[in-house]
Amino acid sequence: MRHVRLLIEYDGTDLCGWQRQANRPTVQQHVEDALAKLLGHDVTIIGASRTDAGVHARGQVASFRTDKAIPLVGIRRGLNTLLPDAIAVRDAAEAADDFHPRFSATGKHYRYSVLARADRSPRLHARAWHVHGPLALPAMQHAAAALVGEHDFSAFRAAGCAATTTVRRVESIAITRSEPDVCDIDVRGNAFLRQMVRIIAGTLVEVGVGKRAAAEVAEILASRDRGRAGQTAPAHGLELIAVGYDGARVRS
Amino acid sequence: MRHVRLLIEYDGTDLCGWQRQANRPTVQQHVEDALAKLLGHDVTIIGASRTDAGVHARGQVASFRTDKAIPLVGIRRGLNTLLPDAIAVRDAAEAADDFHPRFSATGKHYRYSVLARADRSPRLHARAWHVHGPLALPAMQHAAAALVGEHDFSAFRAAGCAATTTVRRVESIAITRSEPDVCDIDVRGNAFLRQMVRIIAGTLVEVGVGKRAAAEVAEILASRDRGRAGQTAPAHGLELIAVGYDGARVRS
Repeated sequence: MRHVRLLIEYDGTDLCGWQRQANRPTVQQHVEDALAKLLGHDVTIIGASRTDAGVHARGQVASFRTDKAIPLVGIRRGLNTLLPDAIAVRDAAEAADDFHPRFSATGKHYRYSVLARADRSPRLHARAWHVHGPLALPAMQHAAAALVGEHDFSAFRAAGCAATTTVRRVESIAITRSEPDVCDIDVRGNAFLRQMVRIIAGTLVEVGVGKRAAAEVAEILASRDRGRAGQTAPAHGLELIAVGYDGARVRS
Repeated sequence: MRHVRLLIEYDGTDLCGWQRQANRPTVQQHVEDALAKLLGHDVTIIGASRTDAGVHARGQVASFRTDKAIPLVGIRRGLNTLLPDAIAVRDAAEAADDFHPRFSATGKHYRYSVLARADRSPRLHARAWHVHGPLALPAMQHAAAALVGEHDFSAFRAAGCAATTTVRRVESIAITRSEPDVCDIDVRGNAFLRQMVRIIAGTLVEVGVGKRAAAEVAEILASRDRGRAGQTAPAHGLELIAVGYDGARVRS
């Protein structure tokens, strides 16, 4: 049976996350409904990352199976006609039969954006976490270095996380000023625990505003205690930039 | 009487432009209503640029008069509490009595953003004009060079434009790729005719997609005939970046 891989971009502001839920608008529900219209049969899609409500993506990957011979360009264009403005398909490609968006992934790249200034920004309202006061980027970079590598990230996972193993490998954390008042935290890793990037971002911001010492982050990691890490940064600052496969490094 | 100058940012998506209209949400109406609540008296504000519905701003300038002694920081914070998410005040400062946001302005900087790719972008949906096919930036840059300098811009003004003189000075037009699929057209000038930046953008995009030769733009300018220029690019791709005063170059 034919297996098709989709590259999906979405603005998560008015969506209830990736995963289908009864009577709530989610990315999975919108894409499955559009595919059902396009193909004339029920479709279940599998996504690489089950993003939370409010989280954005420019590089979500999903796949589905069909017996229909509709060309890839017709799938892409047809979906973009049927999907709401908040969701678009950037690419459609034939996938190997054993391809699995989540289990085949060898890396993911998330970006967490923080607006650090006294006043709100209408432009970044739904795309960056607004915190007051300037951020000390060198301290944040120093703290982030302790998280790079293969570690037990128990201290940085949400209470309800069902993962059986808590060891993950973070390839890199880059902290840069993308605009005078905006700090981007780019996290690349092989896989992530539930809300791990948002807890890392929340903890690093506490270092950036001087609420915690940079050296504390290594201790938090070693403690494996979620109670010691910082707050979970809000969903709307997070974006899934890319998912990598085939051992290749995650592209952004 | 005290004269206060405001620096205002807004997302124009759900606003009906700058200027107050009966029963429609505009930036002027929201800011005047918030000021009336804050100061306890009716206020009329004057803006530097009467942006159209859908146009964004990160550097709109406006001013108002009051006898109230409320500190500047109280004005800024008070307004940001009262204003909707789509509008924020970035700065409040005392202004000279003879300061006029529009007539004192010596320069303005607008940015027009174009998304050039086959598929829509949910992220840029309300912030960039979506056109198909790649843009030839060198041709656009060549065409734009003809518009720089002091010229009669009659060919690049909207039908209803009431300006008595049509000579304006364009300081520079920078055309850059801010992302792989996004082209920013940064126009700086001393003043602009109605919809002039959007007509320039519409014409340059026609050059970029190969619908017109770059050399044609100089002929259009010389013709002073609006009928010869390109379409008016849609409002949502335009942003007022900054207004300059006191002979200083426009900062961005």
